[in-house]
Amino acid sequence: MKNDAHKTQAALAQALFEPKTVALIGASGDPKKNTSRPQRFLRKHGYTGRIVPVNPGRDEIFGEKAYPNLMAVPEAVEHAFIMVPREAVAAAIEQCVAKKVLTATIYSDGFAETGEEGRRMQEEVMAIARAGGVRVLGPNCIGILSIRPSFALSVNAVLEMDHIKPGPFAIVSQSGSMTGGLLSRGLGRGAGFSKLISVGNEADIGVGELTDMLVDDPHTGTILLFLETLRDADRLAYAARRAYAADKPVVVYKLGRSDIGQDLAASHTGALAGADEVADAYFRAHGMLRVEMLETLFELPALIAGQKPARRHRVAVMTTTGGGAAAVVDRLGTFGVDVVPPSDRVVDNLAQKKITIPRTRLTDLTLAGAKKEIYSAVLAELLASDHADLVLAVVGSSAALHPQIAIEPIAEADRSGKPLAAFLAPHAETSLGLLTNAGVAGFRTPESCADAIRAWRDWTPPVEVPAADAKMLAAAGMLLKTMPGKQINEFDACKVFASLGIAHAETAVIAKPEQAAGVGFPVVAKILSPDILHKTDAGGVVLNIADGSALQTAAKEILARVKAKHPEAKINGILVQRMEKGLAEVILGFRRDPQVGPVVVLGAGGVLAEIYKDIALRIAPVGIETARAMVDEVRGLALIRGYRGLPRGDCAALAQAVVDRVNDAEINPLIVKAEGQGVVAVDGLIVFRDN
Amino acid sequence: MKNDAHKTQAALAQALFEPKTVALIGASGDPKKNTSRPQRFLRKHGYTGRIVPVNPGRDEIFGEKAYPNLMAVPEAVEHAFIMVPREAVAAAIEQCVAKKVLTATIYSDGFAETGEEGRRMQEEVMAIARAGGVRVLGPNCIGILSIRPSFALSVNAVLEMDHIKPGPFAIVSQSGSMTGGLLSRGLGRGAGFSKLISVGNEADIGVGELTDMLVDDPHTGTILLFLETLRDADRLAYAARRAYAADKPVVVYKLGRSDIGQDLAASHTGALAGADEVADAYFRAHGMLRVEMLETLFELPALIAGQKPARRHRVAVMTTTGGGAAAVVDRLGTFGVDVVPPSDRVVDNLAQKKITIPRTRLTDLTLAGAKKEIYSAVLAELLASDHADLVLAVVGSSAALHPQIAIEPIAEADRSGKPLAAFLAPHAETSLGLLTNAGVAGFRTPESCADAIRAWRDWTPPVEVPAADAKMLAAAGMLLKTMPGKQINEFDACKVFASLGIAHAETAVIAKPEQAAGVGFPVVAKILSPDILHKTDAGGVVLNIADGSALQTAAKEILARVKAKHPEAKINGILVQRMEKGLAEVILGFRRDPQVGPVVVLGAGGVLAEIYKDIALRIAPVGIETARAMVDEVRGLALIRGYRGLPRGDCAALAQAVVDRVNDAEINPLIVKAEGQGVVAVDGLIVFRDN
Repeated sequence: MKNDAHKTQAALAQALFEPKTVALIGASGDPKKNTSRPQRFLRKHGYTGRIVPVNPGRDEIFGEKAYPNLMAVPEAVEHAFIMVPREAVAAAIEQCVAKKVLTATIYSDGFAETGEEGRRMQEEVMAIARAGGVRVLGPNCIGILSIRPSFALSVNAVLEMDHIKPGPFAIVSQSGSMTGGLLSRGLGRGAGFSKLISVGNEADIGVGELTDMLVDDPHTGTILLFLETLRDADRLAYAARRAYAADKPVVVYKLGRSDIGQDLAASHTGALAGADEVADAYFRAHGMLRVEMLETLFELPALIAGQKPARRHRVAVMTTTGGGAAAVVDRLGTFGVDVVPPSDRVVDNLAQKKITIPRTRLTDLTLAGAKKEIYSAVLAELLASDHADLVLAVVGSSAALHPQIAIEPIAEADRSGKPLAAFLAPHAETSLGLLTNAGVAGFRTPESCADAIRAWRDWTPPVEVPAADAKMLAAAGMLLKTMPGKQINEFDACKVFASLGIAHAETAVIAKPEQAAGVGFPVVAKILSPDILHKTDAGGVVLNIADGSALQTAAKEILARVKAKHPEAKINGILVQRMEKGLAEVILGFRRDPQVGPVVVLGAGGVLAEIYKDIALRIAPVGIETARAMVDEVRGLALIRGYRGLPRGDCAALAQAVVDRVNDAEINPLIVKAEGQGVVAVDGLIVFRDN
Repeated sequence: MKNDAHKTQAALAQALFEPKTVALIGASGDPKKNTSRPQRFLRKHGYTGRIVPVNPGRDEIFGEKAYPNLMAVPEAVEHAFIMVPREAVAAAIEQCVAKKVLTATIYSDGFAETGEEGRRMQEEVMAIARAGGVRVLGPNCIGILSIRPSFALSVNAVLEMDHIKPGPFAIVSQSGSMTGGLLSRGLGRGAGFSKLISVGNEADIGVGELTDMLVDDPHTGTILLFLETLRDADRLAYAARRAYAADKPVVVYKLGRSDIGQDLAASHTGALAGADEVADAYFRAHGMLRVEMLETLFELPALIAGQKPARRHRVAVMTTTGGGAAAVVDRLGTFGVDVVPPSDRVVDNLAQKKITIPRTRLTDLTLAGAKKEIYSAVLAELLASDHADLVLAVVGSSAALHPQIAIEPIAEADRSGKPLAAFLAPHAETSLGLLTNAGVAGFRTPESCADAIRAWRDWTPPVEVPAADAKMLAAAGMLLKTMPGKQINEFDACKVFASLGIAHAETAVIAKPEQAAGVGFPVVAKILSPDILHKTDAGGVVLNIADGSALQTAAKEILARVKAKHPEAKINGILVQRMEKGLAEVILGFRRDPQVGPVVVLGAGGVLAEIYKDIALRIAPVGIETARAMVDEVRGLALIRGYRGLPRGDCAALAQAVVDRVNDAEINPLIVKAEGQGVVAVDGLIVFRDN
């Protein structure tokens, strides 16, 4: 962003989180009503600015002078909180425009989250706000909370609590009703907070922009996102990259793992939820960490505080309870996390201190090792050793009864070398609190502990976007311009791929059966017609044609069969293509995801990708390293593992072409030939964007 | 079991859990030593029987008269707790034999869990015990705990706690060091306990026998197992079926989901861990419930208390926090659990009470519905309606602040109709305690809540074992007796399968190329030799032979190639087999699992089963219903879904034959033909057991 934009954003943040004057439009003086809460909460939690209740029926509410409308307020108002019925919201925004209010938070609901009529009303409200220069949070937003300086502008009942511990955690949540649960859970684990924002329907200010503001918030050290969908993926990507650079981890809990989860997210926020694999790829590409479990949101940050993503991910595990440690390690195993035995040096160094540890992957000190001097010596050795990149310490019954044995050594350990995770086998709230206060990542369940270590393993720096070859891109662009219609046939699609450097099977189109194709035999012949989708069903395909005379026969038969079955179909000729054999078939697709934009998908060929969801997916474009990693991920390609990669053409250019004009592009099948012989596109499809 | 066996078991349970006199062999008077703990814990927790410390160096320990050896004790001793060094354990057991002690619990370690030498010493100890009629718990057993009547015979530091709440939970754990963690976690959630038993190395008394005793324990209502392996699967299966009949759920947490988890289990308990899929099938076959998360162990039982497995598994979800509910429902979706919208009747009944609920799958009352009268009316309606089989109630911030709004309605609800699960979105320990006291299944995390509902969905009554066809079984038995060697060839294997009613491809063996095979063409010809494992590599296979003269040529070529490559190989002729085509190929295998015995495996053909682990597995034998369910489970068979089943032969007989003589039997491939045409075995393998 340019400097001006940054200044504008800073001003918006100021108005959102620390306005000098806030107006409460629709404030109630009846303590039983939800609309009375913001005024009470603001004062209760120590807001020192001016509160202006706006309510035409009251002169005064809870001791503050009330005004019939915003225009009657004598001083400037930076922030308005709107709690009037849906039908009155547009008028309230009009008042904000007239009063030059910087930002309005709309609590009122019944908008896009409820269906088409609500969506239309939301658009009306937003048109007024946009035209008048009022930035909007919501509608359907339960409120926002800033701890330092205190600004509790919310209807959330959770603010009935007396004290909210200040600290580095900021939460941005697409679920308003869940913000209270998140705050309560975090506080229950000893976490402290800077800000808590419910975004409602995100008609204007969204998760991305708020995340960007939090990067600049001096009180925020970790940004936690509770997401149901992605509405401003580009903005969030930009903010996440800034957060990464500023050493403020962005940790995401996102619904939508299952189809039903996606449905729910859609129905209760009015958002279109996308495929979850795309979201995974998106978070990773931009340096965010995604957790699978709710508790991990609060337990993970201490594990990565002050860290950057590690280059290797070897985990050393020490414990006095083999069973407790195995509960974590077993799950790590299902995630493919590498658990390593101690190095010779670790074993030798400890032996010099008369401490014997096994050479197995689990450094189990057993009950006999449940002594402070042993526990701390082993822990120090593992933390200092370069054979492992993270240490997991699992504590047995002593965590509940004798914190001096293992909890103290863990809290006091020198963690400068690498991350340290501690799982406590018993119910040990006090010890968890000790660890939190010491800045150590303590875990209450073996599952969230494994989830956090898995998230650490998956954490990568924001990926660098490879530049497309400008010449190839231009050539493909020219070619695409010459191709009319909504979709282009396989012959033309292969030409486009060729212009981007991807070899395709030798191909020609013949107009009549007797025409020579000039393609090396054996060949396959296929009917070329925009009107016939299922060529094989139409009798329009003959495989394995050995010579010219056989081709002529085959072409005649194809035309006869197709004409009989589809007399109305427009026939553009017969496609003749050299039969290609290879080691494997893959599908290579580029697709514009409605939420995050272009993605690249590599899948096992045939029905495998579909039945077994055997695909690798990344945000497009990808560089060669990423492409190799994708080949490794596809299980069905195990047989050709080690084969050196994807098409040698310019994948970046292909992806860029997709961005510019194309909605979907798919090469299927792409034949992977023997080593050194490359890959060959056999069939393809390009679908243009609606413009 | 016969009556006598039951009496013996009751006597053993009496000696284990409520002996009149217990001897502590190797007791220490030094409070710092672990070996001083049992005496202290026994008294601290109120054991009223006689304690006899045995220690040659002391006359008295903690006020009890000490004896130099067991023979010097004047009265009868029912139970001895052995804490002497490994080398002295055999002598201690000899004393037990001489003193006619009923049972000895061996705390001493260094036995089978440490390797071969320890295993040998364990065997020596056990030989003495068996010969002398002393039943042994352990070695490497941290102890046992009975709450009512109190008997805390353990070295476990967790018993430093003053009070252990009595209740229906009994725990049997293969991890001694984890028993403290489990007890502590259970108590932390308000659970009460009857018994807690660490089984150590299970040299004699194992998990199965203890489970069986707990079925007869009037204080035990739910049996929780923490397992690393299965050492007495048959005994446990028997006990689990008795527990099922007695309405005492057996809930299992078992390590070994990952290979590394299996390794760990093996290395730290000295047990051979088996494939996890087998364990899954085993628990289900015998009516146990397996949980994936540690907390679910304690949170699940209330959900199924007084229930039997449901026939349908439709889940109704109500909430005031859409995001919180979605956190559970999203995971349910990944497990394929069916979440259903309210029925018309539910909607109408509530409308009559002026309560409007959406017709979506999530009954989200929103903040507006966070009122006791609304919450309880909706909950009552869902619990009473027959459109759902389980109700999930998700509670928002009110759970922490205003339990009267939703927690009280949940605690007071009439749950006679169906199970009720409650997930609390905020940190709300008090409300979780209220639910526990009301007998309602309250969940602290969305993940354990989903895990419990998944376990409920997967819960089945113990499967009935289909009887094998006696005649077929006898025929196969006769045939098998005639087949010498360790392994039989494919020709003979198909004969065995045929004797059990499974069709195989038309097959003949010819001794010379010019011999007619009498098999319908096209055929495949394969070399038949016990010395050639890889027929294709040896040039010993020709496919797609069209007629007699081609067969003669192929047979000659096969013999020539094989003789050139393997001049020493014994040749038994040429196998000629009709080429079979079908809709799909599957693998059908019967295998003796080292832990649970015979299992049946159905897999997708080719490499799919391997790469994608695309198999269905059950404890053998299976009936037709189970076989159908297995076909449904294999994803690679999606294309032939609806095909009516497995071989029409007697699978029960095949499995029974496997039990009696065979170690492995595999039909691969088994060709699935078009509907109505059945299946045909094309190749097979039988490996006999070592006897």
